[in-house]
Amino acid sequence: MSKTYNVAVVGATGAVGIEMIQTLEKRNFPVGQLKLLASRRSAGRKLKFHGRDVTVEELTQDSFDGMQFALFSAGSSISKEFAPLAVKAGCVVVDNSSCFRMDPNVPLVVPEINGDDVKQHKGIIANPNCTTAITLMALYPLHVAFGCTRIFASSYQAVSGTGAKAIAELERQVDQIVKGQPVTKEVYPHQIAFNVLPQVDSFLPTGYTKEEMKMENEGRKIMHHPTFRASVTCVRVPVYRAHSVAVSAEFAKPVTVEAAREVLKQAPGLDVIDNPAKSEYPLPLYQAEKYNCAVGRLRKDCALDNGLCFWVSGDQLLKGAALNAVQIAELLV
Amino acid sequence: MSKTYNVAVVGATGAVGIEMIQTLEKRNFPVGQLKLLASRRSAGRKLKFHGRDVTVEELTQDSFDGMQFALFSAGSSISKEFAPLAVKAGCVVVDNSSCFRMDPNVPLVVPEINGDDVKQHKGIIANPNCTTAITLMALYPLHVAFGCTRIFASSYQAVSGTGAKAIAELERQVDQIVKGQPVTKEVYPHQIAFNVLPQVDSFLPTGYTKEEMKMENEGRKIMHHPTFRASVTCVRVPVYRAHSVAVSAEFAKPVTVEAAREVLKQAPGLDVIDNPAKSEYPLPLYQAEKYNCAVGRLRKDCALDNGLCFWVSGDQLLKGAALNAVQIAELLV
Repeated sequence: MSKTYNVAVVGATGAVGIEMIQTLEKRNFPVGQLKLLASRRSAGRKLKFHGRDVTVEELTQDSFDGMQFALFSAGSSISKEFAPLAVKAGCVVVDNSSCFRMDPNVPLVVPEINGDDVKQHKGIIANPNCTTAITLMALYPLHVAFGCTRIFASSYQAVSGTGAKAIAELERQVDQIVKGQPVTKEVYPHQIAFNVLPQVDSFLPTGYTKEEMKMENEGRKIMHHPTFRASVTCVRVPVYRAHSVAVSAEFAKPVTVEAAREVLKQAPGLDVIDNPAKSEYPLPLYQAEKYNCAVGRLRKDCALDNGLCFWVSGDQLLKGAALNAVQIAELLV
Repeated sequence: MSKTYNVAVVGATGAVGIEMIQTLEKRNFPVGQLKLLASRRSAGRKLKFHGRDVTVEELTQDSFDGMQFALFSAGSSISKEFAPLAVKAGCVVVDNSSCFRMDPNVPLVVPEINGDDVKQHKGIIANPNCTTAITLMALYPLHVAFGCTRIFASSYQAVSGTGAKAIAELERQVDQIVKGQPVTKEVYPHQIAFNVLPQVDSFLPTGYTKEEMKMENEGRKIMHHPTFRASVTCVRVPVYRAHSVAVSAEFAKPVTVEAAREVLKQAPGLDVIDNPAKSEYPLPLYQAEKYNCAVGRLRKDCALDNGLCFWVSGDQLLKGAALNAVQIAELLV
């Protein structure tokens, strides 16, 4: 009988937690016991795993006894408090929050890019920011081939990146507008239905948001590229699922669209969808629930002497979160 | 009694045409006779102007007799055929289509930027692309102060930029989704509801769309800046009205956020909405039906040695089309 691992999912009832459970199932991760952990409020709920009910338990200090893996997706404060306890109990933690990403003792991993970095782990491995992960799926292969110096990027981020409550908020606002009722706001500071919000995460003194700087900070660490520069505007759009990013990338070596296309076609976890004549390009609506990210709209950048424009879309609940976390765990079994 | 002018509106029943009529009324343009022109299909419809009904007439070769102004917004092919006839009949044409914009004999005008160019007209004055006009409302004052060399920009364009049929398409698709019915497509090649489309206008052999290159081509002409470079990704988003653009701009002279803010506060037709601590920034939802454009999210660009990031929103039916056209006519009365 092949080896199995006891896996705890922290934040099991959240938008990412649900995807983690489904991804463990779909990819046949060798799960022995599955423990679903959440706040007291969600304890007692039942979620399906391989056809059987698993009852959600309240997260406590003792939750990790006997577990080998703990997949965290319950926010930074929960990770900060409970991830060290999970490590102490003998778990390898894969953490989806931003809590440990820039900690020099914690590998920050996209398996297709820097999978080998998991070997350096001291108990915790961090899962990158969703927009960063999706962008790097296309950018990193180009960086290897042509040496990326910097990017200018704008994002089109789905509400599910904020969590289950934001999905409900968009649905409710659309319903209110269709019925001619006043629009109520609980999650975002402004109406998201039929609007776009140029704010994701909180603001830094520089005027960038934290989310916007993750591209440069996390990108440097994941790509092992300490001089990488990224100027990003992150924007929330009324899309339910899958983020998209428009990128202008500058390279050190000469780059052509043809050479870039060949590189991208070989890249793992990435589909090239790029047939403008037939209006074929990556669309968030079609990337939803797909493991692979997709890149298209390839063209020589007309404002860079050695640059390339592209458009990348990916399901941020999967490649930007749950899938990437399970892939990291797979590297360790 | 003050002088009045007979004004023809071509494409009077379209999304922009309707706004032209309302803008002529709201700004008290000295209209003598108002002639509303459209295709045979729309002839006979009645539209209000200063409280009275004006019947829409079919556009014919003789429509412009006795008119002094003709405001066109019925697409390039109509402009190409009928604008010269209007000029022959003695009209000054303000054309909202892309037909004559790059014609060296036709001024391309944003009144706040290059209003003096109207003096060069030989009968036709072109109204710029909406995304270009809105972006330049913030970029041009910065260019005057700091010398803009190039920009990297991504747009978030409302469906009303495509016209009245696209507004109806988004409404219909939302209704179909809410009711669980199959989604039908007539205007866009893909579902626009809860999706974003990285295509506006048709593709050029370079991989850019025509819309994307308007920023550089029209920007050079409007700003009298023949070396201006602009790399743009234009994206349609499920917003009804008002376009937004995320811009990274590089300058020849040193630029600070404080100096840029002072410049922008003085700029005509532009509001500075930039208080991130209170989540205050330009939003398309709030820019709808406003004459002024709005700029915010000002910050030093972290990937340019001498650059600035900003976010600009504006009602593309107004500043990007109807308002700008009426403002051009105002320069001539």
